[in-house]
Amino acid sequence: MPDTSLPNSWDARAKAHSFFGFTDLPSIAERGTVVLTHGEGPYVVDTDGTRYLDANSGLWNMIAGFDHPDLTAAAQAQYAAFPGYHAFFGRMSDQAVMLSEKLVEVSPFEDGKVFYTNSGSEANDTMVKMLWFLHGAEGRPQARKIITRGNAYHGVTAVSASMTAKPYNAVFGLPLPGFLHLTCPHYWREGRDGESEAEFLARLVDELEQMIATEGADTIAGFFAEPVQGAGGVIPPCDGYFDAMLPVLRRHGIPIIADEVITGFGRTGALWGCESYGFVPDAIISSKALTAGFFPMGAVILGPELSDRLQRAVDVIEEFPHGFTASGHPVGCAIALKSIDLVMNGGLLNNVNHLIPTFEAGLAKLAQHEHIGEWRGRGLMGALEAVRDKATKTPFEGHLSVSERIANTCTDHGLICRPLGQSIVLCPPFIMTDAQMEEMFDKLSRALNKVFAEVG
Amino acid sequence: MPDTSLPNSWDARAKAHSFFGFTDLPSIAERGTVVLTHGEGPYVVDTDGTRYLDANSGLWNMIAGFDHPDLTAAAQAQYAAFPGYHAFFGRMSDQAVMLSEKLVEVSPFEDGKVFYTNSGSEANDTMVKMLWFLHGAEGRPQARKIITRGNAYHGVTAVSASMTAKPYNAVFGLPLPGFLHLTCPHYWREGRDGESEAEFLARLVDELEQMIATEGADTIAGFFAEPVQGAGGVIPPCDGYFDAMLPVLRRHGIPIIADEVITGFGRTGALWGCESYGFVPDAIISSKALTAGFFPMGAVILGPELSDRLQRAVDVIEEFPHGFTASGHPVGCAIALKSIDLVMNGGLLNNVNHLIPTFEAGLAKLAQHEHIGEWRGRGLMGALEAVRDKATKTPFEGHLSVSERIANTCTDHGLICRPLGQSIVLCPPFIMTDAQMEEMFDKLSRALNKVFAEVG
Repeated sequence: MPDTSLPNSWDARAKAHSFFGFTDLPSIAERGTVVLTHGEGPYVVDTDGTRYLDANSGLWNMIAGFDHPDLTAAAQAQYAAFPGYHAFFGRMSDQAVMLSEKLVEVSPFEDGKVFYTNSGSEANDTMVKMLWFLHGAEGRPQARKIITRGNAYHGVTAVSASMTAKPYNAVFGLPLPGFLHLTCPHYWREGRDGESEAEFLARLVDELEQMIATEGADTIAGFFAEPVQGAGGVIPPCDGYFDAMLPVLRRHGIPIIADEVITGFGRTGALWGCESYGFVPDAIISSKALTAGFFPMGAVILGPELSDRLQRAVDVIEEFPHGFTASGHPVGCAIALKSIDLVMNGGLLNNVNHLIPTFEAGLAKLAQHEHIGEWRGRGLMGALEAVRDKATKTPFEGHLSVSERIANTCTDHGLICRPLGQSIVLCPPFIMTDAQMEEMFDKLSRALNKVFAEVG
Repeated sequence: MPDTSLPNSWDARAKAHSFFGFTDLPSIAERGTVVLTHGEGPYVVDTDGTRYLDANSGLWNMIAGFDHPDLTAAAQAQYAAFPGYHAFFGRMSDQAVMLSEKLVEVSPFEDGKVFYTNSGSEANDTMVKMLWFLHGAEGRPQARKIITRGNAYHGVTAVSASMTAKPYNAVFGLPLPGFLHLTCPHYWREGRDGESEAEFLARLVDELEQMIATEGADTIAGFFAEPVQGAGGVIPPCDGYFDAMLPVLRRHGIPIIADEVITGFGRTGALWGCESYGFVPDAIISSKALTAGFFPMGAVILGPELSDRLQRAVDVIEEFPHGFTASGHPVGCAIALKSIDLVMNGGLLNNVNHLIPTFEAGLAKLAQHEHIGEWRGRGLMGALEAVRDKATKTPFEGHLSVSERIANTCTDHGLICRPLGQSIVLCPPFIMTDAQMEEMFDKLSRALNKVFAEVG
């Protein structure tokens, strides 16, 4: 733990001028910040030389670890070749052209078009603007409402935060009007006493039908869903969810957007989360693993129908008045091309599928603990839900900050994992070895035992 | 011009899968796209080997040109050292700590805190969320309205586009409610017949007083202004603007945010645009030149008062629930540290001030043309406004697309400049030589003569 008593310590320097986001302030007041200098595979190392196994992959994104030589080489080569340009005015770098071709090629779509942003937040925000524009151009200016689900996470711009159905956004006076939130498809937590999973699903479908009927189908701009909810606490949908929900949306002509910011490029064991769940959306939102965290980049990948409709609408006004300065940055595109290659041809996706059985077995074993209510996950994203009482699913008292205590104890043991609500989330880098997977579960297990002994 | 007849031409490939933003579609249908492979100083080079002097600095951002060895070396070194991390959970890279120290040190503030984003859009969107949060926490939940000015450009997220007072945002059904736009402080265009500049200013101040009285000071969250409006067409404010407007805002307790995305780090000849106009805002929005366009990055730099008030408000809820995955990316921070060093100590700001007299003289000379209504600018950002009739300030007929024709003709001559409304905008890289400045004006002059001969 850093010595916070020195005025020129890294901790003091970090605190002096950082406005912290998504940071538990009592934890850093008590424990200090962690200032990192470098990485080694899936480990990061702080200014004191302490190594941490980052079971969080940074923020779900550093799928190839923190020093992958091929990604570093791709970045360095592109900085030497062409270190920056935009994609306005019909000018763009060759790298952007090649990445768009590749993204459409590896997408679930037969054809399509790509629009670049710098983040998943911007990509979701852009998609909402595209839908508002499209409906207006096609004579439905009232089609403004956006449907998402409880515990959804779609970003932090005011609009993508409005799509993010988390109570904390109330401090900003969000969501904005017209952002509708369906029930989170989490059977374990949202299912009622005695309700079967099939009955739960039927209730969710009915809720959607009712929402469309009450609001009016012609007032709805689109439906956004993460195939597996990520920052909501790693929540795979209940059985049959997309098979049952999507036909309702299609019947009403409501565009379906898959937010694959976390699930895209292999996290669920398939290239796309929608592939894992057997559906093809109208557009895909991509970020994070797209560049393996080596560069800020997001992309809207439009399937053929949305792409054609949008293009027809834009042709009339001769210009789509939207774009980010660093859209399609050549270095980001070069890194993304290398990252996709590593996932598909360089063994990363293979290793994900190699690791999945061990990962699931490790989660299942820890879930035997009397204070773990359930384990859940898909592919290499998983969560353990802490509970006071397993039978009644009663959570621990909020003031105990149980998941923060577990995560902080893990950090003391050299393991980074993420507290989300009362769950502990794991999303290891795709490069992990079996031995590192074992180290991860061993350290987590010790932390769980320690904290549960204190609070149980 | 690229040969668009070949199915595998770069042009055909670019068009196949790009959803173009901020692109005049008739121009690229007729002329093709320009796919770029590399840069040499202030020049960029396309797939056919054609060189263009980019008088646009990319998008105002590539202030050090397109192959600056020191920036490339800084990026390459950081990719070798630590190629990615976030700034959540009280963990961050050493580079982020050092950049925050530097930003506060070089800011106009005595103290402050920094929050990182990936773009200017995200930084403005973040600042709006910070203000909504602050007012809510301090007991003014109704203080939601944001004041900007006509022709302002603050970005393209739904909220920053709502701040951007351009008519094109109507196609998205924007602005959202509560985004108020004052008159653009452009005396030449907005001044009434016989109205002196001082009378014009008095009218703008009165408009602000009236707006505050009508809306209610307690409903207003903040005032955002670019020191010189950029994408509105390079519009410096009328004489005395900030000196007269800001006291009104201060009297009503309305926070003042300087959007320095374009003006920050030397563009106006001082380090900050607010310095050029002699005021200190409550917070600064930075991006673009911050990394010389080598990396997507934005920053909210909070002055001491806003920083303290926000920190007190956050301490109560223990966590500020906001942040972007790539916030404070170590490579972006390392590049920014080098870029700031180049501007301040490496001669870039000196060269800006060396070039300003030549730049202004060149603009003034071209403004003698009968079809140039005015030249305007500050530092190394300037515009020439095309008019049908100089005396009456009558613009050319819209269907003539006069500024697009000028810009396209410049491109044919190997010069990139930007059409904005009926003006041609120049914002050369800070590394330009006197000879390159001469080349720029020579090519622009020839293009103006050619196009005005056709349409005049």
